[in-house]
Amino acid sequence: MSELIEKLNWRYATKRMNGQSVPQEKLENILEAIKLAPSSAGLQPYNVVVIENKELKEKIYQSAAKQPQIPNSSHLLVFAAWEKITAEQVDKYMNLIASTRNVPLESLAGFQSNINNGILSRSEDVNFDWAARQAYIALGHAVVAAATEDVDATPMEGFDAAKLDEILGLREKGLRSVVILALGYRDGQQDPLMNAKKVRRAHEELFISI
Amino acid sequence: MSELIEKLNWRYATKRMNGQSVPQEKLENILEAIKLAPSSAGLQPYNVVVIENKELKEKIYQSAAKQPQIPNSSHLLVFAAWEKITAEQVDKYMNLIASTRNVPLESLAGFQSNINNGILSRSEDVNFDWAARQAYIALGHAVVAAATEDVDATPMEGFDAAKLDEILGLREKGLRSVVILALGYRDGQQDPLMNAKKVRRAHEELFISI
Repeated sequence: MSELIEKLNWRYATKRMNGQSVPQEKLENILEAIKLAPSSAGLQPYNVVVIENKELKEKIYQSAAKQPQIPNSSHLLVFAAWEKITAEQVDKYMNLIASTRNVPLESLAGFQSNINNGILSRSEDVNFDWAARQAYIALGHAVVAAATEDVDATPMEGFDAAKLDEILGLREKGLRSVVILALGYRDGQQDPLMNAKKVRRAHEELFISI
Repeated sequence: MSELIEKLNWRYATKRMNGQSVPQEKLENILEAIKLAPSSAGLQPYNVVVIENKELKEKIYQSAAKQPQIPNSSHLLVFAAWEKITAEQVDKYMNLIASTRNVPLESLAGFQSNINNGILSRSEDVNFDWAARQAYIALGHAVVAAATEDVDATPMEGFDAAKLDEILGLREKGLRSVVILALGYRDGQQDPLMNAKKVRRAHEELFISI
């Protein structure tokens, strides 16, 4: 078994956290893993809100997500997908590629036209769902990175997205929250799931080999 | 920088692969990372088709996904989300929890009723999108696991899902393909992107710290 698989077996959806802070270096590695997640066409059509403030976590807990790990997490990461994909965002991305790789913008015309035809032409709803999926790849990266840093991480969907968006002012930024990741440390005394055996479908139920 | 971040910087969306096979042990670690990915309520509402057969890869390349890394990949992983969520699937999951953790089925009644109210009550379209998102978490796990095994991995969305479903007979199984991951090894001679600098939005463009 690889070290990564050991770490992934160690992790679980922590329901009770103990309030301990995740050190800055570990947090930065988790954020870097998010930043390095692949996305369709490389567009990264999402933002991630990083929340450490105690009062804000309490407010989110009370009004949007009554999940007990929230107030005792170290950080909450709110993955927020772009509500729509705009020509301005695509232009900005092209400029980013050109400046990062030191290539003329004109050399990217074919790629830009693929994005225009393939993505900009779709409906806002389709693009929002697509953006949300990309954010979930980044969530997967964050979960693995947290485990390798011995940090507990609990993904959460069961929250009131509209309320959370309001609390964080996301709609004004063209964003909608899609999933939360609580980071912190398991509370060994309080978490009934800490020693529960991991439940996963058997290899032959999950994989179809052809 | 952690070792994981180094590996994630090494990886890139490989466009040309060299046909070399990924050793079985590495493949198994990547599949195990997929199996250990978290999912909403733990339901893992997807299957992953593992394709090694050359003719089948060629057929997929020709008819569903003209992407050059496909014929020269070692394995293609097709992530296929459940078309709908059924009461039978939820029952099966409850039985799996009960047998894995050696607890009576009755002790799970509250959890089952949450799933029934929260998930089974939704429309098929909503649940398919939700299932697809869960599959993307597993995709994120696979991408990271491949990088830690020094295996190249290219996620692909630009394929004809209906054609791929037909080739693989997925609809009869209640599945729809949502994303492909090609596993293999970069072709150092042929891949123009191999040495291209990674393009990512700056930390302060991607993260919003509160």
